[in-house]
Parts: sequence; C-alpha cells; structure tokens
Amino acid sequence: MSLLVVGSIGLDEVETPRTKRSDLLGGSAVYFSVAARFFSPVQMVGVVGDDFPAEHRQLLEKRDIDLKGLEVAKGKTFRWSGKYHANMVDRDTLRTDLNVFAQFDPKLPSEYRSAEFVFLANGHTALQLKVLDILGRRPKFVAADTMDLWIRTTRPELEKLFTRIDALILNDSEARMLTGEHELLKAGRAIQKMGPATVILKKGEHGAMLLSRDDCFILPAYPLDEVVDPTGAGDSFAGGIMGYLASADDLSTDNLRRALLYGTVTASFTCQGFSLDGLLSADRQAVESRCKTFRKMLRLPR
Amino acid sequence: MSLLVVGSIGLDEVETPRTKRSDLLGGSAVYFSVAARFFSPVQMVGVVGDDFPAEHRQLLEKRDIDLKGLEVAKGKTFRWSGKYHANMVDRDTLRTDLNVFAQFDPKLPSEYRSAEFVFLANGHTALQLKVLDILGRRPKFVAADTMDLWIRTTRPELEKLFTRIDALILNDSEARMLTGEHELLKAGRAIQKMGPATVILKKGEHGAMLLSRDDCFILPAYPLDEVVDPTGAGDSFAGGIMGYLASADDLSTDNLRRALLYGTVTASFTCQGFSLDGLLSADRQAVESRCKTFRKMLRLPR
Repeated sequence: MSLLVVGSIGLDEVETPRTKRSDLLGGSAVYFSVAARFFSPVQMVGVVGDDFPAEHRQLLEKRDIDLKGLEVAKGKTFRWSGKYHANMVDRDTLRTDLNVFAQFDPKLPSEYRSAEFVFLANGHTALQLKVLDILGRRPKFVAADTMDLWIRTTRPELEKLFTRIDALILNDSEARMLTGEHELLKAGRAIQKMGPATVILKKGEHGAMLLSRDDCFILPAYPLDEVVDPTGAGDSFAGGIMGYLASADDLSTDNLRRALLYGTVTASFTCQGFSLDGLLSADRQAVESRCKTFRKMLRLPR
Repeated sequence: MSLLVVGSIGLDEVETPRTKRSDLLGGSAVYFSVAARFFSPVQMVGVVGDDFPAEHRQLLEKRDIDLKGLEVAKGKTFRWSGKYHANMVDRDTLRTDLNVFAQFDPKLPSEYRSAEFVFLANGHTALQLKVLDILGRRPKFVAADTMDLWIRTTRPELEKLFTRIDALILNDSEARMLTGEHELLKAGRAIQKMGPATVILKKGEHGAMLLSRDDCFILPAYPLDEVVDPTGAGDSFAGGIMGYLASADDLSTDNLRRALLYGTVTASFTCQGFSLDGLLSADRQAVESRCKTFRKMLRLPR
C-alpha cells in the first residue's frame, strides 16, 4: 500500500560529547522515509531551499524515495541544531530556523492523493491539517506526531487534528504535557478520548506503549552497547511502524503490536550511528535479524 | 525450599505530595519478607531497638514470617525518612539513622543455617559477608542488593562479596556508578565479570533487565494508573523474585525469567499503596491474576 509522509527536511548540526558535524541531512520526514523505505514505497511531501545540497537529494533518490512531492523554494532550507548531554538522552535544542518550511504550502502530486497510509510528521499543525484537507477523503490509516512547541502554541488546531487521525505517536513528556496526567496509561487513555483510537507513547531508551481500542501493549527498547546519536530515533520509530503497516496492509491489534516491534528495532539502528549513518548502514534483512534476537530477549516462558 | 533474608528493619517517615506519615514499619528485610511470603516461608535476620512497636512485630508474625532471627537490642530502631518529588520517582533521603543496626552482629538460629536461598538485602557490606561466613557452606542461590553508600565506602568488601554470590540485584544508577558504564547492557556484563553469574538491573518505573549466563531478558514495569508510594518497591521486587525461586526450586534460565515477572508484579502492588499498605492488600492470588493480565500486555504475536 502507498505511504505518504509530510514533514520537515532540513540541515542539522548535531553535537555529542564525541562529535560535532554540520549541514547534515535531517528532518522528521527524512528519518521517517529512510526508515519506512525498508518496508514500503514512500512518497515524500516537503520543502527545501535553493541551498539544499545536491548530494542530500541524491541520497534520498538512491534509496528510491519518491520525491515528486518535494518542493524547492527560494530561500534557505529548514535548519536545526542540538547538543546532547553526556548521558546521550537529554539534549538542548540550540537553534530551530524554519526558513522556507515556515511558509510551506503543500501541493500533492495527483498520484499521491490516493495514499492509504499517511504520516503527518512533526511540523506545524496547520500544515498537517492542510494535507488532510487536500487528501479530501479519509485514508485507511493516518498517524501524526507532534511536539511541545505545537502543544503550547496551536492547541485548538491540534484538537481538531486529533479528531481526524487514527493514531498519535508522541513522546511521554509531551503526552504528560498534553493531558496533565503523569502516569502514561492515564495520559494515553486521555488522548484516546480526544480522538485517535491508537496512541503510541515513546519512552526513548525505555521503549514504548501502544494503546489501541481496548488493547495495551508494552515494549522495551532494544538494548544497545552504545548510543552514538539518538537524533531522528523517534521519526525512524514512526517510519518503521508505518512502513511495516503499509506493507502488511493489516491494521489488526496483533499487527499493530508487530509494527511496534519493527519501529523499535528500526530506531535502534538510528541510535547506533551519527546522524543518518546508523539507519543507512541497515537494511530490511538486518532489521529482521535483530527482530529475531529481540524476540528472544522478550520471550516470557509459560 | 527455605529462604533466609538479612537486612534492615526500621521505622520510616515517608512524605509524598499528598501524605506524610511517621513511625511506619519499613526496612529492606521487611518489604522483602512480606513480598517473598506470598510464595515461600521466610526466615528473617535483623535487629530492632527496644522502642520497636509491638504491633509491627505482630504484623510480621501474622504474615507467618519466621522471626527467630530477629534480635531486640538495647537502643533505638533503625530509622529512615524520605520525601518524594511530584513525579513520584525522584526522592530525597532526609535522614538515615542506623541506630542499633550500626553495630548489629548477626546470629543465625541453628535451623536457619541450612537455608538454600539467601537474600542479603540492602545493608552494610560487612554484615552481608558476615552472614555468608556464618552459613559456612555455599547455599544453592545467594542474591544481594546494595546501594550508592556502600559502593562509595566499602568497595573492597563489595568486590569480595561479589565473588561469593550468585546474583546481584541493583538499581540502574548504582550499576552505572559501580562500573562507570552508562549503557546498562555493558554495565551488567561488567558486573558479571566481577563475580555474580546473574545480574538483575532495576529501572524503577521502566522495568528491569536480567543477565544470566548468556541470557538477556528485558521486562517493562507493570503500568499503574497511579503510583501512591514507591518506597520498598525494589525490596518487594527482590522478595517476589527470591520467594518464587525458593518455592519453585528451579534455577533454570526460563525460571529466572518467570521470577522476574513475579518480582515485577509484586512490586507493582507495593507502589499502589502508601508504605506497606499496597503489599499488605495483595495476596498470591492477586499476584497470579495480575501476572496473567501483564502477560497479555507483553504478548508479541508471531
């Protein structure tokens, strides 16, 4: 099944205790697409400036990600820079320059309009709503991500969005912020009441919780020997989930659980390398092999 | 199989954002014993002062915990007081008065000396070593807990202890402190190299990791709607594990995994009530029923 994503495409500057690099290919739609592409074709909707390096575009083309929906606008590409603390979990966002992403008015190539799986990656809530408006009909499965910034500044639009999506994928801290509930089970249920039948709460190094209809599924993160750079892990997690769901075209409770496994394992590769390197070094086979190892670690004997 | 525990028995003062109570029955050996007693007989070794309230002793007697190893010494009972932050996870220890526990010279009733399952609960490392000396022979399975204080002040004794135990059960932060490794998998493996074949790392609300021989098992925590008071959760977790292992008398890799499930579920009851209340309101049947529910939340479809 076709999978469409709209989100940021940017140039990142990332600093960890060991490394600092600039002008890296990044953004929510990029990490999502590279991850989802392990499982399914991906159509990307987004915007870059005329300063966007040709090699970044080529990288995405080489991964066979459909870029017909990628607009090149006059001006500068979206930029983000962040610095990780020694624990490789906490980070400070040093700068976010929306640039051409601020005024982005999405246009969907006609062949994108029949997408049945849609992911509204982290970005302005109005943009997420706009894409749903353009699609017109209700696709099979629409999932969205959001963040503290939009929860603070676009709450009314977010509440509208929640009634139009099937799944919300967001961080534990953001779920707490959104609902005022500290315990994740309560926060997740409160979000379900706002609209999305499925809520996936990301706990970073501690795994994720999936609430769907009456189902509750808990999955730890895949344990790594070393976390090199967690940038994009959340977007890769969503990419693994949505890519797997689109490829299986099965939205049963059991398949949502499987999708969470694929998302978790895909994200673990992202954390193992700097910037996109970890994800780029993996492929579907590596993901499957790690899923097998991970299943052994999770097996609960009768 | 017989299960022996040595550790603190104390009077706690606990403050949460909602409640503050004093002179509560507490201590590592107490939480451990009440939890372990769901599964197995328990022999308790410890000391209290002559101020120890009769009703606290009666409570333990009523739970059929063997108190022949409980010494009453001249002086004051061990006291601990702590205050929880709003997130109900972080806490400040306000006071720790060892009192009679400081000079405790353990004597084991003769019928305790054949114990095959032994838990050296959080307490002075010298006391933990002393109990092993008194036992003389190597029991079937000895597990120990420790904390930052002893890691800082009794490192050489701890290293000796590690060569004489089968399992170490400790917090993630303490494992990091002990080994200098941030990633838990690495920290756990480093501890295995120090002696204990089995290492169980407690991640509080995020679950636990079990390393045994070549096995690695990861289990999330049981999700609660509300955490009332996590005091004693770690000791109850160990109590559930050791009580289950002693009752099953099976140290296979699979059974260690099952024990982790029982420990996790037992600890969840502790968190649901203030002080010992949550644990006291549960019984073996309630634990079994929650284990069943929890297994459903963890089930990973083929």
